[in-house]
Amino acid sequence: MPRQFPKLNISEVDEHVRLLAEKVFAKVLREEDSKDALSLFTVPEDCPIGQKEAKERELQKELAEQQSAETAKRKKSFKMIRSQSLSLQIPSQEWKAPLANPVLSPATPVVPSAFMPVQVPYDVPEFQRVSISGDYCAGVTVDDYEQAAKSLVKALLIREKYSRLAYHRFPRTTSQYLCSMQDEKWKVEDEVYPDFHSPPEENEDPYNLDDAPDNLDYVIKIKGGIPFVYDNKEMMELNEPRSLPYPDLETYTLDLSHVLALIADGPTKTYCHRRLNFLESKFSLHEMLNEMSEFKELKSNPHRDFYNVRKGRQTFHRFDKFNSKYNPVGASELRDLYLKTENYIGGEYFARMVKEVARELEESKYQYTEPRLSIYGRSPDEWLNLAKWFIKHKVYSPNMRWIIQVPRIYDIFRSKNILPSFGKMLENIFVPLFEATINPKDHKELHLFLKYVTGFDSVDDESKHSGHMFSDKSLNPDLWTSEKNPPYSYYLYYMYVNIMLLNNLRRERGMCTFLFRPHCGEAGSITHLVSAFLTADNISHGLLLKKSPVLQYLYYLAQIPIAMSPLSNNSLFLEYSKNPLREFLHKGLHVSLSTDDPMQFHYTKEALMEEYAIAAQVWKLSTCDLCEIARNSVLQSGLSDKEKQKFLGANYCKEGPEGNDIRKTNVAQIRMAFRYETLCNELSFLSDAMRTEEISTLTK
Amino acid sequence: MPRQFPKLNISEVDEHVRLLAEKVFAKVLREEDSKDALSLFTVPEDCPIGQKEAKERELQKELAEQQSAETAKRKKSFKMIRSQSLSLQIPSQEWKAPLANPVLSPATPVVPSAFMPVQVPYDVPEFQRVSISGDYCAGVTVDDYEQAAKSLVKALLIREKYSRLAYHRFPRTTSQYLCSMQDEKWKVEDEVYPDFHSPPEENEDPYNLDDAPDNLDYVIKIKGGIPFVYDNKEMMELNEPRSLPYPDLETYTLDLSHVLALIADGPTKTYCHRRLNFLESKFSLHEMLNEMSEFKELKSNPHRDFYNVRKGRQTFHRFDKFNSKYNPVGASELRDLYLKTENYIGGEYFARMVKEVARELEESKYQYTEPRLSIYGRSPDEWLNLAKWFIKHKVYSPNMRWIIQVPRIYDIFRSKNILPSFGKMLENIFVPLFEATINPKDHKELHLFLKYVTGFDSVDDESKHSGHMFSDKSLNPDLWTSEKNPPYSYYLYYMYVNIMLLNNLRRERGMCTFLFRPHCGEAGSITHLVSAFLTADNISHGLLLKKSPVLQYLYYLAQIPIAMSPLSNNSLFLEYSKNPLREFLHKGLHVSLSTDDPMQFHYTKEALMEEYAIAAQVWKLSTCDLCEIARNSVLQSGLSDKEKQKFLGANYCKEGPEGNDIRKTNVAQIRMAFRYETLCNELSFLSDAMRTEEISTLTK
Repeated sequence: MPRQFPKLNISEVDEHVRLLAEKVFAKVLREEDSKDALSLFTVPEDCPIGQKEAKERELQKELAEQQSAETAKRKKSFKMIRSQSLSLQIPSQEWKAPLANPVLSPATPVVPSAFMPVQVPYDVPEFQRVSISGDYCAGVTVDDYEQAAKSLVKALLIREKYSRLAYHRFPRTTSQYLCSMQDEKWKVEDEVYPDFHSPPEENEDPYNLDDAPDNLDYVIKIKGGIPFVYDNKEMMELNEPRSLPYPDLETYTLDLSHVLALIADGPTKTYCHRRLNFLESKFSLHEMLNEMSEFKELKSNPHRDFYNVRKGRQTFHRFDKFNSKYNPVGASELRDLYLKTENYIGGEYFARMVKEVARELEESKYQYTEPRLSIYGRSPDEWLNLAKWFIKHKVYSPNMRWIIQVPRIYDIFRSKNILPSFGKMLENIFVPLFEATINPKDHKELHLFLKYVTGFDSVDDESKHSGHMFSDKSLNPDLWTSEKNPPYSYYLYYMYVNIMLLNNLRRERGMCTFLFRPHCGEAGSITHLVSAFLTADNISHGLLLKKSPVLQYLYYLAQIPIAMSPLSNNSLFLEYSKNPLREFLHKGLHVSLSTDDPMQFHYTKEALMEEYAIAAQVWKLSTCDLCEIARNSVLQSGLSDKEKQKFLGANYCKEGPEGNDIRKTNVAQIRMAFRYETLCNELSFLSDAMRTEEISTLTK
Repeated sequence: MPRQFPKLNISEVDEHVRLLAEKVFAKVLREEDSKDALSLFTVPEDCPIGQKEAKERELQKELAEQQSAETAKRKKSFKMIRSQSLSLQIPSQEWKAPLANPVLSPATPVVPSAFMPVQVPYDVPEFQRVSISGDYCAGVTVDDYEQAAKSLVKALLIREKYSRLAYHRFPRTTSQYLCSMQDEKWKVEDEVYPDFHSPPEENEDPYNLDDAPDNLDYVIKIKGGIPFVYDNKEMMELNEPRSLPYPDLETYTLDLSHVLALIADGPTKTYCHRRLNFLESKFSLHEMLNEMSEFKELKSNPHRDFYNVRKGRQTFHRFDKFNSKYNPVGASELRDLYLKTENYIGGEYFARMVKEVARELEESKYQYTEPRLSIYGRSPDEWLNLAKWFIKHKVYSPNMRWIIQVPRIYDIFRSKNILPSFGKMLENIFVPLFEATINPKDHKELHLFLKYVTGFDSVDDESKHSGHMFSDKSLNPDLWTSEKNPPYSYYLYYMYVNIMLLNNLRRERGMCTFLFRPHCGEAGSITHLVSAFLTADNISHGLLLKKSPVLQYLYYLAQIPIAMSPLSNNSLFLEYSKNPLREFLHKGLHVSLSTDDPMQFHYTKEALMEEYAIAAQVWKLSTCDLCEIARNSVLQSGLSDKEKQKFLGANYCKEGPEGNDIRKTNVAQIRMAFRYETLCNELSFLSDAMRTEEISTLTK
């Protein structure tokens, strides 16, 4: 061992370093006790301005670097060197090629290896990918893994079945994996989409009543809560309805049972819990590694930031009991006076208010809203009155799409003897819709109004107990004559069956379809989220997904849209900082931000912007996060295909980076690729577990 | 699109599922408001017992599975399928082989690809590896990356130089990378180790004074704080000292300047900050993925858990001012009476107490301690008195190794006129040691005592200001006659130079060497940690590393041992939960747990076990975490090579899983592999940046 020690003297050393060190030393000495002394060595962590400035500086440096051909070269070389040094870190053994006879697996997904330049079939700037190697599935036994995967796949197939039937949406990627697991070929033609009416052109009259199609002469009858459509009166008398597929009560309760049993299954809980934890950590690693690259992508996207990205929102005219409970003024008469479409001044005040909001939105240009209008099911006239109100007051706005909310308050109407049975309530709600669909000529106002309706909501305080256990033995709606309110799942099943059959009939006629978008999982029983998993296109709130790893993971895999309203929740059920929105977003659930009753829970006139602003502040969401949420909002919304193409890009139906047009959405392609590849990776775990036959072959 | 809807009926469905679902539904209904209803669906997160039970159950299942040949087969197949499906997720392009002419890089490290069964040159159970692909270095510009990497490498080379010179330790892996960066061949023979005396055998007398080697007749003289050794008196008079390498003040201050400038350098701060964040996230992902596998490894390690793993500790007899400041009884006379070796009853009470503690340790069998004894430098007799006390009271114990602490209280002695200069203090401390080394025959007691001494500590309240700025212009110790105390860096430099030269002389004679292990970074200026980076083998505390990403990353790369005492800090400087121990451990810094003054800060008789217990509870450390800390403790300690082999395994000098004997340490090989591969990965970033010539070739 050489014991020499080379002495240094000042001339050899960079004088600059010595001076800098001396300055540092002197400064520390002078300010030993002050914060300034430390700030020399630390990175600004708690100071938002410091962080922002540092980020901007970094960006400027990187952008400057991009300009230089010399640096671009060096950068490329570093990348080559890095990929070499990664591959060489594999120790001395021979190089092993992948197995010779690869088994087929879905072709699109991409999880790159650690030491290969990544080549993906879509256009995305280079970024750092997190990958995991070495085991098939962490910390779960083979049996548990197989059992969990199979049950999850079965649950996904159930949702897919209910979604297709109702013209609800189901993610293409998940569908592709499900197909391949069943050895079926996925075809784009088989995809099912809801159909929303495109808004009238500038020169068209939005209130034109003259284009109603002819009468089909079908006859509609709701029996036991299920709508039956007959070709004509004779067929009805013969009791021969048109054959329409729908899930009967027995089928529905059995499907529900499967998911219900699944969410309490130990191995599946463990499996989903682990996967969700992994998703969260993976995102945080992704952010840490690629934050700057995402930021850079957005910055080089000219004339576009969060403020001119389209944002959807859903609003006001909320359900009665809820209103009386939380009415800040405490006077429900005021609410009746101003906010009902049926009060004695013909809903004029309400219409004026709506129109005022609409003008503001139209001016703001980038904000859209999906206000709720109530249909109670007290009488069959409600629809016609609503349609007339809409037309009389000229409430139409290109920045508004209407959603019908049905409060779950049968018990109140029954106790006041307004309704004889739950079946009658369903009839009042749905028969007018079937009639307007079969014979639009005789229901011109409703036919027109329905063009601007995109879905149904089911609303009320979810924490109310029904005391009844839903099953295939539950009385049918015609026999449900007691004053007890039916449980949530019962409401959802009958809403779903009616909407689904209505959609099929409307589709047959080329008319727009409706989505079922219930309030769900804000409070009450977790089983609500199971019912919605089958019946809903998307839900509002979903807070209780926090409590069930299995449901949360299923909502992730099926990319079920969840519209969250942390500020409203804040006032009612959950403290803002405990709201799971940020956690759900990071894991990759399909969340959006919305305002729920903006007149009650917000301080500024711009309730939606207030939700975004506070979310950004409290959770330190990046612009890319905010734009991802805004993009989700548009996807979830009832905007027409044409509008979505305009706001999201022509390929918005494609998933992953291919479906994203950064110039419109301002969501980084890197983020899109991360989400897409991550979903593929999760799904591939399920598809691996399904290859039982291969396993028996491989082990022979 | 097929619109059929298969109806289900009960007979087709697993009756078991239906019953389970009904039970679930009924239970939820019954207990809708209680916590029990939710616990059906959640995973126990806040309840430690629930978590522990769940983990145990998982383990039992996995162990049962291991027994089954059938499941082992299926498991293997799943792994094959998984690696195929990962490799197939690379989209349709042709397979690309790695580059044909790989550039050489260090051979040992391993970072596996995502889709290859990992084959590593050491024995480690399969586990899931986190790897990152796609860029050379996240979010830093080429220039900054290169600049940061080069400066960090330079700092590491500086520490290596100072460590080798002083027979301090430097990690083999880092050294191998540094060699390869300089195109040098790393040789195991070139490694430098401290030499600690093996404890006497059972039949040997630990107080045997008869084996002292002969007088070399060298002459020692400390001039200006630097020891000079002369072959004899004549040579001294000719002023011709033996040529020993040491860093003179100018060299030292220049090296110090480099590191000092580095820690305030913007790009380097950013780079280190990012790497440290990455290390933390990577560990948390590793834990999430492999917690169960690590747990399983430990469980299949029979008759070994945390309680019978060797733990080092360092203890009491602390420095005066500190004592008077924090003495809980408030009577420093009591402390003098009981705890000094030089008081009027000959330190008898103190010796008895030490021996009582020693008996307890010997009985506990698995606990070792490194108590501190003070040498003040007031007079040259201190050493002889201490050695005599040691021998007279037979204080030796196989479970104790002694460390000499030197309080930094020159100013007190000077103001009482006990010392004329700082130089005299250094003489009092070090001349007796040189003399006992040159002529043991005439210093038998001290020679004997030094066998049981393993290092020097430098202690005092670090938050005291010196008001003097250390530089190469600082007065030398002989001229330092003012009442002002020299600054921390000045103390450390002169302690280092004396210990280092003493070690070289002792090594020449085949005698044991000493480590410099100052208290550092508990409070005060961050520059203390820069001084220790050059001069210390390891440090106590290091809390302030939290404030400097550059230093923290350097301490990581150089694996500088840090003995932390959160309970003592808790009482003095830092709230327990804010202590960075857990964060440092997770990132991979070489931390251990120790008790600092166990008589003041602890509530149980077993102060060290109290530290471990509280750390485990507050931070939810796993058994593997605790055993990793305990293993670090033994490595950091002054236990002899023979003892370390006994406690850690024959290969403890090797790094990574090869160096670990799980049967002794109870640290999972998976954990060892993770740490090792992670360190290699970080170092490879530095080594990639050094290949500037290649870059110019590649870009031509």
